[in-house]
Amino acid sequence: MVAVNRQVLLASRPQGAVFADNFRIVDAALPSIGAGDVLVRNEWLSIDPYMRGRMSDAKSYVPPVQIGEVMVGQTVGEIVESADSRFAPGDKVLTQLGWQLYGVAKADEVRKIETSHVPTSYYLGLLGMPGMTAWFGLLDIGQPKAGETVVISAASGAVGSVVGQLAKLRGCRAVGIAGGPAKCEYVVDELGFDACVDYKRGALYDDLRSACSNGVDVDFENVGGEVLDTTLRVMNRYSRIVLCGLIAEYNATEPYGYKRLRSVLVKRIRMQGMIVFDWKHRYDEAIAGLSRYFAEGKLKYRESVTEGIDNAPQALIGLLRGENFGKQLVKLA
Amino acid sequence: MVAVNRQVLLASRPQGAVFADNFRIVDAALPSIGAGDVLVRNEWLSIDPYMRGRMSDAKSYVPPVQIGEVMVGQTVGEIVESADSRFAPGDKVLTQLGWQLYGVAKADEVRKIETSHVPTSYYLGLLGMPGMTAWFGLLDIGQPKAGETVVISAASGAVGSVVGQLAKLRGCRAVGIAGGPAKCEYVVDELGFDACVDYKRGALYDDLRSACSNGVDVDFENVGGEVLDTTLRVMNRYSRIVLCGLIAEYNATEPYGYKRLRSVLVKRIRMQGMIVFDWKHRYDEAIAGLSRYFAEGKLKYRESVTEGIDNAPQALIGLLRGENFGKQLVKLA
Repeated sequence: MVAVNRQVLLASRPQGAVFADNFRIVDAALPSIGAGDVLVRNEWLSIDPYMRGRMSDAKSYVPPVQIGEVMVGQTVGEIVESADSRFAPGDKVLTQLGWQLYGVAKADEVRKIETSHVPTSYYLGLLGMPGMTAWFGLLDIGQPKAGETVVISAASGAVGSVVGQLAKLRGCRAVGIAGGPAKCEYVVDELGFDACVDYKRGALYDDLRSACSNGVDVDFENVGGEVLDTTLRVMNRYSRIVLCGLIAEYNATEPYGYKRLRSVLVKRIRMQGMIVFDWKHRYDEAIAGLSRYFAEGKLKYRESVTEGIDNAPQALIGLLRGENFGKQLVKLA
Repeated sequence: MVAVNRQVLLASRPQGAVFADNFRIVDAALPSIGAGDVLVRNEWLSIDPYMRGRMSDAKSYVPPVQIGEVMVGQTVGEIVESADSRFAPGDKVLTQLGWQLYGVAKADEVRKIETSHVPTSYYLGLLGMPGMTAWFGLLDIGQPKAGETVVISAASGAVGSVVGQLAKLRGCRAVGIAGGPAKCEYVVDELGFDACVDYKRGALYDDLRSACSNGVDVDFENVGGEVLDTTLRVMNRYSRIVLCGLIAEYNATEPYGYKRLRSVLVKRIRMQGMIVFDWKHRYDEAIAGLSRYFAEGKLKYRESVTEGIDNAPQALIGLLRGENFGKQLVKLA
């Protein structure tokens, strides 16, 4: 059997929304490995909002994907071949191999994962970047105190769903914002948030106001745009905004014009941007905490699985439209 | 001699810019005092940007002035009559008696001031709210480290001029933003900032970029609007924004739409609103620090004096247009 390495390349940079023709699918030869390398067969690909940023050449916190390069992304898979004594074929590993079926990584950049208690794919979500983003963003920046109200936008998503559950575990009132009744029901009935506001109803301010009768002490912001600008109206004095994502802006050709910045002054709000990489030295702490809550049955988690690498572009396009429901993954093998 | 208490009342709420007819000047009888009160003859009235907010009934951190009420404001003056053993006629005091020639205050709300080393009026500026705003905003929120670049908008104003000098004293590069060549020259030549950008030249981004070749680590923001939105473009990773004032917005009928909020996320900026009242329990610390620097000749300070209470409305109107040069005061006696 000759394995073929199917890859998704960036074909062109999107102007506004992402379309299928921004990608090109190719079959490449299986890469070969050198000393200290491992060859990995990717099993799961994580699809995340930040990928929209990497498709663009606007200045950001990391360089963009170049045209003709394999799209970036976090992956979990199985070692097929190893030229490093720490890894053997069959080991499950967490990697950054991108949108392709196989990849070669330096053994130093690969992390072995423990899959006896949790599914492999969870290392891309609950125990991966989204879970850790929720953990450090809420606890380190949001600093919620028991009894406070925490609002979470994109509440049914990979990050938001964990944030709200952690907020509840800390004794807070958790209020989600999500699109459509199905997601809102899930957020309240399954995840245990106290309330969830459907922004698609078109009455965000009134709905937020009535769901947060004591105002908002922490806003964990994944969406931005109108959602953030409206949330600013219900923030309390000395409240905190964890600026984690601005998905509402990613596909826009013009940035949103925020009109409520004055609230930050008047209410002495602290707004802080976050990228989870800044907590790299503390990842173990988050994984331990999240694993413990999960083992105790205190954290629920949902995945939205797209089958096959050929459908990866559609998975990202859907995610950017809010069509996913829980952590978006592509099953590669 | 029968003294008359001339007062400036709020006559109507401005829509956008403030005009003289938003005020009414009246002569009232001298107020009489009860037990525990003092009667003060006001000598200096402080004119500050926040007063625009009090003229409006939009929700803010304190209630607005009601129509027909005396305009609020900080004052220094001399005790004329005292029904409290701690004060005697002739004592100089810091008060909140507003836009009028005389006023009655509870002795508990009056603060005796030491005028042997500094002019009385300095307690409305360098050693008053503006100086303390500069002190706590820069040091507590901005947290500048030696070698960092601090940008200060409204750099020649009562707050900005102190911020920049404190930044220099902490070993930082201080870059001002001010309107017109005269203010910019003053900021650099008299106050000792490293550079000052004239926003009226119409090339703010390019000028800021070249004045801040290592980017900006702290933005002490007094202006907002286009100035803040442009400064966001040159902020460094992990930088801080002290959101102290938004004078560019105060007279606007529509709030400004900030387009660069994405920088806060991508660069992990911490933006925090401040109102100096929150440091009330630490005012002495700022007064001691500022007095020491002033005594050592390390802090320069400029006042813009309008003569007579009848001209107080014009003083505020001019301030909101950026016509003042240094701390704006009205000399009442």
